[in-house]
Amino acid sequence: MVEELNRAYLDALSGDIAGKKADLLQAQMAELHPADIAEILDKLEDEEVQYLWNLIQTEERGDVLVELEEDVRVALLAKLSNREIAEEVLEHIDSDDAADVVSELPEERAAEVIQRLDTEDREDLLSLLRYPEGSAGALMGTELIRVELDWTVSHAIREMRRQAEDVETVHSVYVVNASGQLLGRLSLKRLLLTATSTRSTIGDLFKEDDTHTVKVTEPDEKVVQLMKKYDLVALPVVDDHNRLLGRITIDDVVDLMEEEAEKDYQLASGLSDEVESDDSLWDMTRARLPWLLIGLFGGLAGAYVIGVFDIERFPSMALFIPLIAAMGGNVGVQSAAIVVQGLAAGRNPRDERLFPRLLKEFSVALLNGAICSAVILGASLALGYGWNLSVTVSLALIAVIIFAALFGTFVPLTLDRFKIDPALATGPFITTANDIIGLIIYFGIGVLMSA
Amino acid sequence: MVEELNRAYLDALSGDIAGKKADLLQAQMAELHPADIAEILDKLEDEEVQYLWNLIQTEERGDVLVELEEDVRVALLAKLSNREIAEEVLEHIDSDDAADVVSELPEERAAEVIQRLDTEDREDLLSLLRYPEGSAGALMGTELIRVELDWTVSHAIREMRRQAEDVETVHSVYVVNASGQLLGRLSLKRLLLTATSTRSTIGDLFKEDDTHTVKVTEPDEKVVQLMKKYDLVALPVVDDHNRLLGRITIDDVVDLMEEEAEKDYQLASGLSDEVESDDSLWDMTRARLPWLLIGLFGGLAGAYVIGVFDIERFPSMALFIPLIAAMGGNVGVQSAAIVVQGLAAGRNPRDERLFPRLLKEFSVALLNGAICSAVILGASLALGYGWNLSVTVSLALIAVIIFAALFGTFVPLTLDRFKIDPALATGPFITTANDIIGLIIYFGIGVLMSA
Repeated sequence: MVEELNRAYLDALSGDIAGKKADLLQAQMAELHPADIAEILDKLEDEEVQYLWNLIQTEERGDVLVELEEDVRVALLAKLSNREIAEEVLEHIDSDDAADVVSELPEERAAEVIQRLDTEDREDLLSLLRYPEGSAGALMGTELIRVELDWTVSHAIREMRRQAEDVETVHSVYVVNASGQLLGRLSLKRLLLTATSTRSTIGDLFKEDDTHTVKVTEPDEKVVQLMKKYDLVALPVVDDHNRLLGRITIDDVVDLMEEEAEKDYQLASGLSDEVESDDSLWDMTRARLPWLLIGLFGGLAGAYVIGVFDIERFPSMALFIPLIAAMGGNVGVQSAAIVVQGLAAGRNPRDERLFPRLLKEFSVALLNGAICSAVILGASLALGYGWNLSVTVSLALIAVIIFAALFGTFVPLTLDRFKIDPALATGPFITTANDIIGLIIYFGIGVLMSA
Repeated sequence: MVEELNRAYLDALSGDIAGKKADLLQAQMAELHPADIAEILDKLEDEEVQYLWNLIQTEERGDVLVELEEDVRVALLAKLSNREIAEEVLEHIDSDDAADVVSELPEERAAEVIQRLDTEDREDLLSLLRYPEGSAGALMGTELIRVELDWTVSHAIREMRRQAEDVETVHSVYVVNASGQLLGRLSLKRLLLTATSTRSTIGDLFKEDDTHTVKVTEPDEKVVQLMKKYDLVALPVVDDHNRLLGRITIDDVVDLMEEEAEKDYQLASGLSDEVESDDSLWDMTRARLPWLLIGLFGGLAGAYVIGVFDIERFPSMALFIPLIAAMGGNVGVQSAAIVVQGLAAGRNPRDERLFPRLLKEFSVALLNGAICSAVILGASLALGYGWNLSVTVSLALIAVIIFAALFGTFVPLTLDRFKIDPALATGPFITTANDIIGLIIYFGIGVLMSA
């Protein structure tokens, strides 16, 4: 186990690779967990990765590949032969991971690689590849242990021994009837810890319970919700006739949760794409540019608004432009973030009525607005900005806060209703729109006050 | 299982509660999973919660309580007697959950409740309460199955049967030596599926492996990192002498991950506190006010900057104030978010040198800045804002983008170095600081251009 993957360790490793110290490196890799090897490969140059790859124990290569970051994995896959991918990678990993790897290959290569698998693996893989991304089926693996209700315990244990060879971690033993329909789970604990006679059948041990299941076509957010809510380690997947097709394990759900959280976070911070600090200059630029360009056009629209209101006649109003723009943006983002988080956590019933929600948001904004407005009125009078400007700013501020809060709540809820990711509303859109509308409100009140 | 907890269901339930239909409600609750009951209670009024609480089956009450949202749980605990908390709740839940519940009680009550537990539970609980929040110990439960190396398999199975009564889900069987030091794990799969003779001992079945462990004093982020990286379902916790103290299960880690992600998200969106759309008006206002007040003072500082530069002499510069302020804030948040995410995912080696990182950020900002600057120069010339103003804006923009990117990278990295949560830098601080400094740069260049 690498305690802390630091620069010194990586530099030493790069040195050994440059010096082609194959035996030393091979011994070093043999001591490491696949996840640790993957973490190391993620930090190396492509040629170093390829060199080190061949020094990893064959049966561990698949597990290493699965743990790599996507860009590193894709680069490595491009260098491996079809035979290597099929025999050294796919045959050693779970079917759900195999499906993920294959779907990252160019279509033609994917077909060639699949042809090299044995019939059973090939059929499993082809069936998994049918499920669209975002469905429970796409998260599912077929490795599991199933026993039939009328088997004797000793027959079941023999069968389980055979099946268990393919299954890395046994979470549960699934009990099915003769048509393959899922009846429930039998915990290993129960099987191990219940005294049985030689004649006992699985049916004697098994108590029908409310086993949580998910249909293969259901969306993956349903999977996350179920496993989180009921603290499940594995979730069986069934078809429309309740026939057991596979299982989803918690580690995949943890990864999925993390991806979703990162995506929402990125949208809220104005990053349009997954981006990490070790990505290339161009990747990093591209992830940031979209929001910046939207911001630019928002800024131009702002300039137009200020020009229309003839700033040269009221130059002192310019002083509070940053305040009005910033507050509109801030309030809008806060409101949108609460909606997005509530939807992501599945906390809000989808049929919740829009009006009471907006009414509450209005009350919160009124309270916040009144406080901020009073503070700014006092502060700007004290700072000598004069009654006219101070009252204009404080009236505009409360109006902007209320508008931004309602807009920030309404937009993500509406996006969600149309099945568009509500997190889109947290980034550029709300901020820019609120900036511009804030300015219109501010200068509108300014014109009224000076009339 | 409640398929979709909708408003109609809740209204019907509230009606039954108002009508005191105890038998009906009791039968209804008996059919539900504790997590479903908790979800329902979260949405009801306090008096309804109290009424329904007594209709939940006694042995399920603890599991329901643990799943409640914190504010609902605290309100309910305040209404329960010490005896009810001890006997109906704590004795039916895992020790880690019990410790969490007790630590939510006022200190005096906690002591009284603990006195009511039997000796073993009391000692377990007191030992868990010693570990500070944020440590592995605070996440750990003591329920686990341990066997000694020299036990025969049949003795071990008898012992396991006894121990398993207290353990809800058996993840692994931990093998210890006579002094209680952890030697490794024995999977149930192995125990169940390996043919043994009556004389076999645990030592015959057990292969020493690199079982991942965590020290009880280590921070919980280390726990998250280990369990995520190695796809663990349970992680044993040991003391400095490698003696087995307890285990941490994946469901607690999933909850912790989610909390951390939500906290970062809230900070990035300018919410100072955990807040949900069904919180009270005052809670919602309080969570938002801090950022708004910081924004207000930032706005006043901006007004001061604009005043100092004598806007009345260059009124047309007011037009691009929103653009400069928005871009500075946007770039700063983007840069800070990348740092925060990298740190949270444990992707960046902590010993990474600051300078190369800033250099890369500088390059990205230079590229983004050059693109944005060129766009704005062309656009503002085309819109007839004249050479002087257009060049000023475009020079200021590139300077602001570069400064904001460096500042946005530097601040969270520095906070992290001083062990302060780097996510603090994503919210009000960076945006407000960049707004003000952006204005100084803009008007500074304006003054130079007009000189």
